[in-house]
Amino acid sequence: MWSCITDFFTYETTKSVVVKSWTIGVINRAVQLLIFSYFIGWVFVYEKAYQLRDTAIESSVMTKGASVFCIITKMITTENQVQGYCPENVDKYICTHNSNCTRLVNKPGSYGILTGRCVPFKDTIKTCEINGWCPAEIDTIKTTPMMEVENFTIFIKNSIRFPTFNYTKGNFLPTITDKYINECNFDIVHNTYCPIFKVGDVVRYAQQNFTKLADKGGVIGIKIGWICDLDKSDGHCNPSYSFTRLDALSQKNAVSPGYNFRFAKYYKMENGTDYRTLVKAYAIRFDVLVNGEAGKFNMIPTLINLVAAFTSIGVGTVLCDIILLNFLKGAELYKAKKFEERGGPHFHLLLATELPQRSAHCLKV
Amino acid sequence: MWSCITDFFTYETTKSVVVKSWTIGVINRAVQLLIFSYFIGWVFVYEKAYQLRDTAIESSVMTKGASVFCIITKMITTENQVQGYCPENVDKYICTHNSNCTRLVNKPGSYGILTGRCVPFKDTIKTCEINGWCPAEIDTIKTTPMMEVENFTIFIKNSIRFPTFNYTKGNFLPTITDKYINECNFDIVHNTYCPIFKVGDVVRYAQQNFTKLADKGGVIGIKIGWICDLDKSDGHCNPSYSFTRLDALSQKNAVSPGYNFRFAKYYKMENGTDYRTLVKAYAIRFDVLVNGEAGKFNMIPTLINLVAAFTSIGVGTVLCDIILLNFLKGAELYKAKKFEERGGPHFHLLLATELPQRSAHCLKV
Amino acid sequence: MWSCITDFFTYETTKSVVVKSWTIGVINRAVQLLIFSYFIGWVFVYEKAYQLRDTAIESSVMTKGASVFCIITKMITTENQVQGYCPENVDKYICTHNSNCTRLVNKPGSYGILTGRCVPFKDTIKTCEINGWCPAEIDTIKTTPMMEVENFTIFIKNSIRFPTFNYTKGNFLPTITDKYINECNFDIVHNTYCPIFKVGDVVRYAQQNFTKLADKGGVIGIKIGWICDLDKSDGHCNPSYSFTRLDALSQKNAVSPGYNFRFAKYYKMENGTDYRTLVKAYAIRFDVLVNGEAGKFNMIPTLINLVAAFTSIGVGTVLCDIILLNFLKGAELYKAKKFEERGGPHFHLLLATELPQRSAHCLKV
Repeated sequence: MWSCITDFFTYETTKSVVVKSWTIGVINRAVQLLIFSYFIGWVFVYEKAYQLRDTAIESSVMTKGASVFCIITKMITTENQVQGYCPENVDKYICTHNSNCTRLVNKPGSYGILTGRCVPFKDTIKTCEINGWCPAEIDTIKTTPMMEVENFTIFIKNSIRFPTFNYTKGNFLPTITDKYINECNFDIVHNTYCPIFKVGDVVRYAQQNFTKLADKGGVIGIKIGWICDLDKSDGHCNPSYSFTRLDALSQKNAVSPGYNFRFAKYYKMENGTDYRTLVKAYAIRFDVLVNGEAGKFNMIPTLINLVAAFTSIGVGTVLCDIILLNFLKGAELYKAKKFEERGGPHFHLLLATELPQRSAHCLKV
Repeated sequence: MWSCITDFFTYETTKSVVVKSWTIGVINRAVQLLIFSYFIGWVFVYEKAYQLRDTAIESSVMTKGASVFCIITKMITTENQVQGYCPENVDKYICTHNSNCTRLVNKPGSYGILTGRCVPFKDTIKTCEINGWCPAEIDTIKTTPMMEVENFTIFIKNSIRFPTFNYTKGNFLPTITDKYINECNFDIVHNTYCPIFKVGDVVRYAQQNFTKLADKGGVIGIKIGWICDLDKSDGHCNPSYSFTRLDALSQKNAVSPGYNFRFAKYYKMENGTDYRTLVKAYAIRFDVLVNGEAGKFNMIPTLINLVAAFTSIGVGTVLCDIILLNFLKGAELYKAKKFEERGGPHFHLLLATELPQRSAHCLKV
Repeated sequence: MWSCITDFFTYETTKSVVVKSWTIGVINRAVQLLIFSYFIGWVFVYEKAYQLRDTAIESSVMTKGASVFCIITKMITTENQVQGYCPENVDKYICTHNSNCTRLVNKPGSYGILTGRCVPFKDTIKTCEINGWCPAEIDTIKTTPMMEVENFTIFIKNSIRFPTFNYTKGNFLPTITDKYINECNFDIVHNTYCPIFKVGDVVRYAQQNFTKLADKGGVIGIKIGWICDLDKSDGHCNPSYSFTRLDALSQKNAVSPGYNFRFAKYYKMENGTDYRTLVKAYAIRFDVLVNGEAGKFNMIPTLINLVAAFTSIGVGTVLCDIILLNFLKGAELYKAKKFEERGGPHFHLLLATELPQRSAHCLKV
């Protein structure tokens, strides 16, 4: 019992061989320096492993809309639609007999529910009849986009908070005045604290051509990144903006390029019948995307990473041993010194059947 | 001084005992093989630890709406409401005297502001009076849902980008044609590159019954996952779809099951008075949720994980030592060989009071 | 060849020096205990490293709106606007000659497109003319907010799912009844399973003053957190609510404080001309933000962390060695025991030019 206790409080450390050699000594220290530099330079300075991180950014985006809003650049309006029966106008619904239409019933894609009848559309052309809002929209009309949109401005107010550190900031300074807001203009280099964005600038920052974009519509992402080192002063926590076209793939193919949607304005006749104006709108949609993380010095991550750093320095020994025992002159001698053999010249087959008496009492860990 | 420098450049390596035993040799190599397999199979092949990851996927979802949109399946309309005073109709506001209503003033839940008066509703039934849009809505009417919705189609255009690698892709191929779009139909197995989804299919993939869903409304999540290995060819980065009912819990309880909301269409009489049509709409809401990550070979994570792998192989020694020193025949002999004792048969109490002279100059690390 | 195989299956373990000393023995075990406690207490119990994590929470938020909705508290309406030409009213567009206006053409910020003419606004005041919806809005009128909003209620139904574990829950119990829903009131302490929130309560929980908020508008975040330990019973997975003002920075500066937006209701005259009512609405916007993660016991993370724990205990030796060899009485003796020198009294310069014969065949790893 007492022997187990004294056994428990003995200290075991590895026996070391000291090799007095410039070659291996320098290699060893060089490898250690490399590992040390990695920890200092990359882990501590670059990745700031001594900080507690907060990636759960709370953000509120306010525009004269929501964090996703759009500016209409082109409209095709179909006025005075009423519920009823009328011929479709899309080219694929051209027909000669009812039978052409019957097989299309329940097929998706038309503006209303297909009745299965083939009715005259214009002149001698016949199309399948639909039950829905009539007359059906003709969206192949060429219209020119409103180029004035390029000079329109967007007002984006972004307020963020890091809950772990209870730190709050926004994309405008608390010192701004009405006069400044009325006159300033966001500039990605010189003026990142003005919340007023000119549409033309945003489109240019996203490397798009305004004329093309206004014609077909599209989605522009306005990304606001907040990477904050809260160990530094408040002035170092600034938003960084980046602008990209989010529907980049839309440009590459001819089918349904750009961005458009439909909406209707509903009116009532004196007799109570509903009628509507259907609008197919081509628009530039702006998605404001906010992300960020903050870090602040904290003991726990610092300690864990310091221990990791010190332990990792020992890794250098593995490399040096390989060099020492294999590639250096006099390796055989080192081997003889490093390795003490046990078990004579012939191999033994050790069996685990009998537990040695003493170790049954106090396990060796 | 010079002695400190030469001391610094000596190389220390652990002295080892070589045990020539098949048993422990095989165990050792087996444990090492296990650790090695774990790193190769799990860390490198499965988790692709040699890649730099980009989880900051940029996504744009375009539908004939937004990334959250809904299709109305059932409507209860209350036409010609005007601002005024009228009796409530909800059962809980039945009253016999004004006193029943007075105590409800400021209580939440009614369609307008309670005036505190008890007025006749129908026949002999009296309810509390409200000030708001009158007459109050009666939403207990039974209506049948529009079953045609099952055949409606949804058009979902999803374009993604991994900013770290500047890699762009979409849920439709750049080679698609108008003809293909008009005829194709999304199929989770055979046709994942068609952006046209039939409502009935989506509901079925989410394992829901369309009739029930259309009657009560509900929320279906359309998840598009992009797990891309950019070391492989472009054809290997494909979207994977999954469909679930997001408001799964709504089905389980009787109170307010499903999904419904109200909206109003506003009109004006000739004399300028506003009136409105209130609509209570039961709808299937579709939430398109996009997530993803991409990986690409990079030296830094590869090196870090290789070092971790090589270092971890040494862990096997810990297990083997426990076996060797405790459970093998001849363990006492091995102990004698492995451990060199220092300190005689009696324990010492070492004190840290006096710093040894030499080590005061060059610390031993 | 055979010698290489036997070589491969030899087992090498470090030779150890056993130090029988109470001081260092106790320090060693204390350090090991510290490391052990860290792993048990922090890694396993606190951070639950034995669990597989699922952070990809699927959430559906249903309100009588969407996950972002607002309640209007104050409105400035401009009735009967028609498309045409009229003078601007904003103070900055005051002018005396056309030249004042010409230079403003293409400048952002007005309610319509500036024509460049200077026209009479009221009395002797002249302002620049715009082409747009006329007459222009005058939004400087003082109006009092609707204080009744404080008693309004919000219904928030939140259903979540952890896809990895296929676990579903919601912010209301499956056992709730209609009666309960009609009478209950959310309370952050006593009643977290009632989905009915009083606006006044929410504002108070976010530590805001309702009167101020209603006057200027603002954005309140309702955060629902689901941190679930699925090893425990279902009753332990509860939502935790927190309420914050998301646009906290808006309060600090005088320019455009709070939250407001504009919308229009469109009507048609008998002759088909469109006219509209423009509304500038001050509102409280509620953003429902759901986050969460679930954990459940799993062999793989348990094993990895157990191995990490056992390996880390060895780290204690590094610290003890530093103490033993530098700060303890008799350190020189320990040094002599621990370090076996190789290389005589003079340093050698080992060169890697000649590969030793035997090691060329079987590398020493």
